[in-house]
Amino acid sequence: MTVKTQLTGVEVAKHNSSSDCWVIVHGRAYDVTEFLPEHPGGQKIILKYAGKDATEEFDPIHPPDTLEKYLDKSKHLGPVDMTTVIKEATEDDPEELERQKRIAEMPLLEQCYNLMDFEAVAKRVMKKTAWGYYSSAADDEITMRENHSAFHRIWFRPQILVDVEKVDLGTTMLGTKVDIPFYVTATALGKLGHVEGEVVLTRAAHKHNVVQMIPTLASCAFDEIVDAAADGQVQWLQLYVNKDRDITKRIVEHAEKRGCKGLFITVDAPQLGRREKDMRSKFTDPGSNVQSGQAVETNQGAARAISSFIDPGLSWKDVPWFRSITKMPILLKGVQRVEDVIKAIEAGVQGVVLSNHGGRQLDFARSGIEILAETMPVLRQLGLENKIEIYIDGGIRRSTDIIKALCLGAKGVGIGRPFLYAMSAYGFNGVDRAMQLLKDEMEMNMRLIGAQNVDQLNPSMVDVKSLFNHGYGPADNLAVSVYDPLVTPGPRPKSKL
Amino acid sequence: MTVKTQLTGVEVAKHNSSSDCWVIVHGRAYDVTEFLPEHPGGQKIILKYAGKDATEEFDPIHPPDTLEKYLDKSKHLGPVDMTTVIKEATEDDPEELERQKRIAEMPLLEQCYNLMDFEAVAKRVMKKTAWGYYSSAADDEITMRENHSAFHRIWFRPQILVDVEKVDLGTTMLGTKVDIPFYVTATALGKLGHVEGEVVLTRAAHKHNVVQMIPTLASCAFDEIVDAAADGQVQWLQLYVNKDRDITKRIVEHAEKRGCKGLFITVDAPQLGRREKDMRSKFTDPGSNVQSGQAVETNQGAARAISSFIDPGLSWKDVPWFRSITKMPILLKGVQRVEDVIKAIEAGVQGVVLSNHGGRQLDFARSGIEILAETMPVLRQLGLENKIEIYIDGGIRRSTDIIKALCLGAKGVGIGRPFLYAMSAYGFNGVDRAMQLLKDEMEMNMRLIGAQNVDQLNPSMVDVKSLFNHGYGPADNLAVSVYDPLVTPGPRPKSKL
Amino acid sequence: MTVKTQLTGVEVAKHNSSSDCWVIVHGRAYDVTEFLPEHPGGQKIILKYAGKDATEEFDPIHPPDTLEKYLDKSKHLGPVDMTTVIKEATEDDPEELERQKRIAEMPLLEQCYNLMDFEAVAKRVMKKTAWGYYSSAADDEITMRENHSAFHRIWFRPQILVDVEKVDLGTTMLGTKVDIPFYVTATALGKLGHVEGEVVLTRAAHKHNVVQMIPTLASCAFDEIVDAAADGQVQWLQLYVNKDRDITKRIVEHAEKRGCKGLFITVDAPQLGRREKDMRSKFTDPGSNVQSGQAVETNQGAARAISSFIDPGLSWKDVPWFRSITKMPILLKGVQRVEDVIKAIEAGVQGVVLSNHGGRQLDFARSGIEILAETMPVLRQLGLENKIEIYIDGGIRRSTDIIKALCLGAKGVGIGRPFLYAMSAYGFNGVDRAMQLLKDEMEMNMRLIGAQNVDQLNPSMVDVKSLFNHGYGPADNLAVSVYDPLVTPGPRPKSKL
Amino acid sequence: MTVKTQLTGVEVAKHNSSSDCWVIVHGRAYDVTEFLPEHPGGQKIILKYAGKDATEEFDPIHPPDTLEKYLDKSKHLGPVDMTTVIKEATEDDPEELERQKRIAEMPLLEQCYNLMDFEAVAKRVMKKTAWGYYSSAADDEITMRENHSAFHRIWFRPQILVDVEKVDLGTTMLGTKVDIPFYVTATALGKLGHVEGEVVLTRAAHKHNVVQMIPTLASCAFDEIVDAAADGQVQWLQLYVNKDRDITKRIVEHAEKRGCKGLFITVDAPQLGRREKDMRSKFTDPGSNVQSGQAVETNQGAARAISSFIDPGLSWKDVPWFRSITKMPILLKGVQRVEDVIKAIEAGVQGVVLSNHGGRQLDFARSGIEILAETMPVLRQLGLENKIEIYIDGGIRRSTDIIKALCLGAKGVGIGRPFLYAMSAYGFNGVDRAMQLLKDEMEMNMRLIGAQNVDQLNPSMVDVKSLFNHGYGPADNLAVSVYDPLVTPGPRPKSKL
Repeated sequence: MTVKTQLTGVEVAKHNSSSDCWVIVHGRAYDVTEFLPEHPGGQKIILKYAGKDATEEFDPIHPPDTLEKYLDKSKHLGPVDMTTVIKEATEDDPEELERQKRIAEMPLLEQCYNLMDFEAVAKRVMKKTAWGYYSSAADDEITMRENHSAFHRIWFRPQILVDVEKVDLGTTMLGTKVDIPFYVTATALGKLGHVEGEVVLTRAAHKHNVVQMIPTLASCAFDEIVDAAADGQVQWLQLYVNKDRDITKRIVEHAEKRGCKGLFITVDAPQLGRREKDMRSKFTDPGSNVQSGQAVETNQGAARAISSFIDPGLSWKDVPWFRSITKMPILLKGVQRVEDVIKAIEAGVQGVVLSNHGGRQLDFARSGIEILAETMPVLRQLGLENKIEIYIDGGIRRSTDIIKALCLGAKGVGIGRPFLYAMSAYGFNGVDRAMQLLKDEMEMNMRLIGAQNVDQLNPSMVDVKSLFNHGYGPADNLAVSVYDPLVTPGPRPKSKL
Repeated sequence: MTVKTQLTGVEVAKHNSSSDCWVIVHGRAYDVTEFLPEHPGGQKIILKYAGKDATEEFDPIHPPDTLEKYLDKSKHLGPVDMTTVIKEATEDDPEELERQKRIAEMPLLEQCYNLMDFEAVAKRVMKKTAWGYYSSAADDEITMRENHSAFHRIWFRPQILVDVEKVDLGTTMLGTKVDIPFYVTATALGKLGHVEGEVVLTRAAHKHNVVQMIPTLASCAFDEIVDAAADGQVQWLQLYVNKDRDITKRIVEHAEKRGCKGLFITVDAPQLGRREKDMRSKFTDPGSNVQSGQAVETNQGAARAISSFIDPGLSWKDVPWFRSITKMPILLKGVQRVEDVIKAIEAGVQGVVLSNHGGRQLDFARSGIEILAETMPVLRQLGLENKIEIYIDGGIRRSTDIIKALCLGAKGVGIGRPFLYAMSAYGFNGVDRAMQLLKDEMEMNMRLIGAQNVDQLNPSMVDVKSLFNHGYGPADNLAVSVYDPLVTPGPRPKSKL
Repeated sequence: MTVKTQLTGVEVAKHNSSSDCWVIVHGRAYDVTEFLPEHPGGQKIILKYAGKDATEEFDPIHPPDTLEKYLDKSKHLGPVDMTTVIKEATEDDPEELERQKRIAEMPLLEQCYNLMDFEAVAKRVMKKTAWGYYSSAADDEITMRENHSAFHRIWFRPQILVDVEKVDLGTTMLGTKVDIPFYVTATALGKLGHVEGEVVLTRAAHKHNVVQMIPTLASCAFDEIVDAAADGQVQWLQLYVNKDRDITKRIVEHAEKRGCKGLFITVDAPQLGRREKDMRSKFTDPGSNVQSGQAVETNQGAARAISSFIDPGLSWKDVPWFRSITKMPILLKGVQRVEDVIKAIEAGVQGVVLSNHGGRQLDFARSGIEILAETMPVLRQLGLENKIEIYIDGGIRRSTDIIKALCLGAKGVGIGRPFLYAMSAYGFNGVDRAMQLLKDEMEMNMRLIGAQNVDQLNPSMVDVKSLFNHGYGPADNLAVSVYDPLVTPGPRPKSKL
Repeated sequence: MTVKTQLTGVEVAKHNSSSDCWVIVHGRAYDVTEFLPEHPGGQKIILKYAGKDATEEFDPIHPPDTLEKYLDKSKHLGPVDMTTVIKEATEDDPEELERQKRIAEMPLLEQCYNLMDFEAVAKRVMKKTAWGYYSSAADDEITMRENHSAFHRIWFRPQILVDVEKVDLGTTMLGTKVDIPFYVTATALGKLGHVEGEVVLTRAAHKHNVVQMIPTLASCAFDEIVDAAADGQVQWLQLYVNKDRDITKRIVEHAEKRGCKGLFITVDAPQLGRREKDMRSKFTDPGSNVQSGQAVETNQGAARAISSFIDPGLSWKDVPWFRSITKMPILLKGVQRVEDVIKAIEAGVQGVVLSNHGGRQLDFARSGIEILAETMPVLRQLGLENKIEIYIDGGIRRSTDIIKALCLGAKGVGIGRPFLYAMSAYGFNGVDRAMQLLKDEMEMNMRLIGAQNVDQLNPSMVDVKSLFNHGYGPADNLAVSVYDPLVTPGPRPKSKL
């Protein structure tokens, strides 16, 4: 790249149409005119910034190396003298002013006593669109809520008079010793919640000696996240499989080279979900589109914008190929019925994550914990219970949830959103405290259930009779809100005289 | 009819009593004095317009050919000079003003992301009486709500790692290829929601290549609806059987001649239901009737006013006669238990619709989806599962609902109210978008459940264990509202000194 | 009784202490000094009126012949010149003023479309204490609400294509032909709701050709109620058995002589229930009792005040004696488990009412309809199903409730509170309309379930799988209201600087 | 102890740092500098009172002999001239002013009709921190609420026509005759609710002839509570086992010597629970700790502060030792599954309390009543049902709850919080009335279920089919509050023009 004289804001501002579109990102200008039709998130969002500085919008949803990787070097126009770029007068958005007020009053970290508390704080202090992306789920968000509710249908049968002076929470996951049986599961777009993104989670995982699973759709670049890890800190890779298998191969090989110790192939997301809360939070006046009924494809939210590369053709036939390109243990993330757990064992993978993608994909998919309770008795009957490691994720908020999963046969559990919320509200300290709270809770609850270590947790310690009962599920909020309830008679009509 | 000089408003206004009653409809006067006692909707509603222009009230609940057909030509008094008719000063009805305000602020079509959203908008912008007619159901409206709630007790068991790059939503209904397995089911009085009435649905059905079922009680004339269909567009006929079988025969033969491809005989409505919300929305001061306890028969709502011709004597014995008068496939609409499905097969009909009439007839009738789940295992056991086509309707709001029905063995589902609401709020564009949303949802959810086409949907993909559990049903709103809950002690009584 | 000169208010007012206590009732003075300790309702309530006119308080809870019967003639002091009695200045009770306002706006009768509507109106227009007595039930009022809720766990399996042009609602109860299978069950203290009391129900029962059960604790005298009946109108007697069997015998013999056609012995009330809503509604400043913890026995509400004569020693051993003193059919009212139904058959009675006394006695007693569903299969297995007539009461509000009971094997159902509420709100016209609404509902619902007459109703028409499921019961309002829910963190503490 | 001249407030106030810390309690000064690091409740709370009068804070959570027992005599600095001690100006705490207002309006005792009423009053009039300690429970407080809810899933099958003129509520517990089958179970820190503490309960237990269980963590000294008992009044001892078995031995031997008739060893609390409501109610500005994520260990609430001595190593192996040091009957308090009941029988103890510690320890532990329903059928099958006495506690609020427990096989039930609330609101009179209300309720309900005495209560009188159904549990308040429900579309965006 030859040195160029600095561009000025005035110059860039001239290129502000779909036929001639420049944008500024991190102080450098790019000509994206030809790229416009290919942008996975649609042209519209780019055109909004045509001739302007797009950095703030760009950052959370693109790893920093995106432009390097995907835009031809010839379109890199070089540095801009940012003093010449007119800052858009931020309107006094009353919503934003309210949010700033809430931030000023946000609770002290010490006022958070459990993982729900972080979510409550995050809801108050996050930007609406970021909250919309993190908190949203598929359709009526039944499955998302069921994920946690399902744990409420499992009750304990504690043992008494066990010597629990010393309690050991540690276990081993894919050969790695960890201090407590959870890992930080992969979640996308960490910079929506915190300016530093996923590396915050890396540091907290290290402090508490748990594994972090690195997401394909991270805001940070993969290497940044690996670089943020401490010596010997174990990370796994979550993988969305690209239609272009060469790209996938490169990603996997690179991850293995960088030391990743597990490959978690997402199998519950051939297409990323419609999440209406996310879509609604991003809605803005569509202008001249008003008359048309054709606008379905707009405003699909962040999820679909960033996921068009995912291959819906991925199938069992691809598993041997994965085994051929890596020595990392391979796990299928998003298995949802016992039949497929058995298939996974037959396919020779090292593990499965029973998961519904945090309720973000197929609504009315069952919770991981319910699939686990369906799966283990069958595996035991077939003598297969030790053939693979079984993990679950979704809805874990209390150490009792972790203990229930382990009683039922899980090796460990993945936790995603709670750490995102803790990070969004309080940064590293929030995630640190969240993990510590789980440890404190778990140490006590191990004592109270009468177990000295996780190996002693067993099915006799839980009562799952009600787990499969879906007679009373999460509220159908939309249906309830549109229903016009019957009323008893009002006052008599007033005389018309 | 001889040409007459135009009548004047002053002249018409003189005939304003039950013994001499003229009304104006679409600019022409009619003498309805003798017809008064025969009016299915009662005399009162006509007398309200005695000597006046009744067009606005007349239109939504009478097909345009009604007066031609049912009022003797001698009573047709000819055109009125409408400039001489005094317009009733519309009172500044505060309720109507509020509604107009809501209309001005109604959401853009693009803000609707699912079928519930259209209902929410319709509730806000429709006239109270029209909303009352569409949204009301029998007694406590338990069944109406159960229709959708039942789907919430069915959970998915998705398959993973199926190649779902290409997903085909199409199927065949009574030999007709359709793009997605739903049809527009018959609903009465379309003009209450939209000035054009049912033809709006005709056009939308054509655009999305689905079948429309034409209702007996349409606001548009039957021929209008057929005429609105495109070349090759398939329509079915929903039939309320008249006490006078000759009329029924004429209707059926005419429908067949005009190309209808299916005859759906309604069997769940020997008498049309009492719908209290509808009745209450129409209540007006009954004046001198106040003292009497005899007023039960008034204000029965639109449903009963228009349905007095229906034959409550219809029975299994009539089925052979229907088979003798038409070559159209015959289906029974409103079958509600497996015993009657078997009887229907024995009677030689081509199909059944498991339905409770949208909850508008017998409250506590079970949902179509539950009857389906009861029926199919029995049919399979008897080897009868392929003898007829089985449809369900009631409560479908999401593509997941459609998929659940197909997994359980339905050929397709009927959707009624949601399209009425979309039409009432946004006209054709609303219905168009509603259908497109269902297609978008379904394409994604087929991928997520792991099915390439509807033939791959099967019972192993759903968990119906909780479907038959009615321990927690739709809220009993009236009972809850009249109950006076116990309270803890209030403050001490004030001293009387 | 010799003629006396009229007493004056001034004279009566002197006798205003517990050692010398006169009261005026219906314009006559009585010396109740010696009677004070025996008053079943306690001394306190009488002393409140010592030296004053007690008519308004006296009337609703004492039959008019009470003083004649229970107070020695020597204590009858003769007529008072009422012009000399000082009227107590009615304080401007703000609660009463509110009530009068609600009465002025009360809905027209025609605005009531179902039985719940009458209850809603009654709640608004009745005096708080009267409403408290009628609407209250035992403990947490769980059973009272369960009585109706239980019907919501029963669903229909309607038959189609049955010729239901003619529908016959009539049946026979204890040999009496009635127009619809309900009777007016016994409820106490009718004058609390309407100045005329139970005779209003007598007249309505006659108009609709149903049986009235006369309560022991009526506000009207027994003979008044019998006298109010039309020629040939059938009445039954509800009996609380007195500790003094001679009194009981006289009552039974008198009832038989006056033509009663059934004797319903209450067996679920050896002691009348504590009803806290009733007690709370009557609470007034206990004055000097404030310090004492001994006040449990006061303010027990109307129920216990009037019921001290009931014999808690009544047992199966008494049944033969009843059979010896009357030829009326004997029925046990309040049977609550199948074992006791069988005992009743063995004891030779003609019928039972499966009932929990409207939820007013033992909280968590099961609903009549659930006991019925438990009972009939056992009786059928033992071949006893036709040995007695089985009735249920409690919670019937819709004709669908009646139909469910008949499908399950009941001969008919008793309805109590709804008619009291209709009477309290609208007098005779209210009860008339309530009964007519039930007939209208039932005629339609018989058609919709596919039955021409009540004999065709059978167990295959209902789905009771969920009836026995008590996983989700009526709300525990007190527990919910005292629970202090966990909250997420509030704002950070304000700096103390 | 030699006589010293009185200290002055000025002198004491100089010793106000962690390196030199004096405090005043009950008019005497103590040097606690060296004791600071050992204080089970942490240094911080003491330092708040360094150089000041700590009596008010000290009293409720320390028995009066604490300083005598645990602080070396050399640190007892002798009496302080309290007239010289500056009273801290109580700030006009608006929360406290509100509370005083509520106290002024608190209901009369006669307005309390049931045990829930006392809780409602206590919630209004207690100090927030005291209420927080009494009312709080583990994690989401699911188990605490389930304890009472579980009773709502048990329904009665009453017998009729049993002679219940005389009803006897009495029974025998560990050989002691009591008037009604409940005992006052052990609860900590009675002085938080009432200045006199546990002795109030002692007196009430005597008046109603029931047993009191003396808590290890009482505010009163053990001997005070025993001294408060009347002649022949029976008391039991609840025991937290100390890591130092010598201390435990001394306590047990002393209790036996003082006449205790039962030793209840707590086995469900190897570590005292985290109770977030309690922690939150005590939260105050942590000042300079704000930045740190390490603050987990602060503000753990009263429970953990006072319980660090409890031995988490207690196990079945210790049972024989207990049998060797006392002749009192030994019972295990907190048994939670049938397997451990059988172990207890094998270990030769005299009884068990099926309990989850009032929901304060392991959340999602099952209710005592459910464990009872699991246990008794197994014991009966093994012929062990008479080998030990079985008690339950948790959630008893109504006499029907007691009756249900006895029907299912319990010997009696323990009641804790309700008496604390009655005491906190109304002192002795409150507890007296609470007990009397239970007696009144139970006498009536025994009549209504058809039992003359507690021996006649049996399993056929209850329907427990739904007890094990946990499909619908106590509300998950935190999860519900953080969930952001989907909404239907809002108004269209305003034009930006």
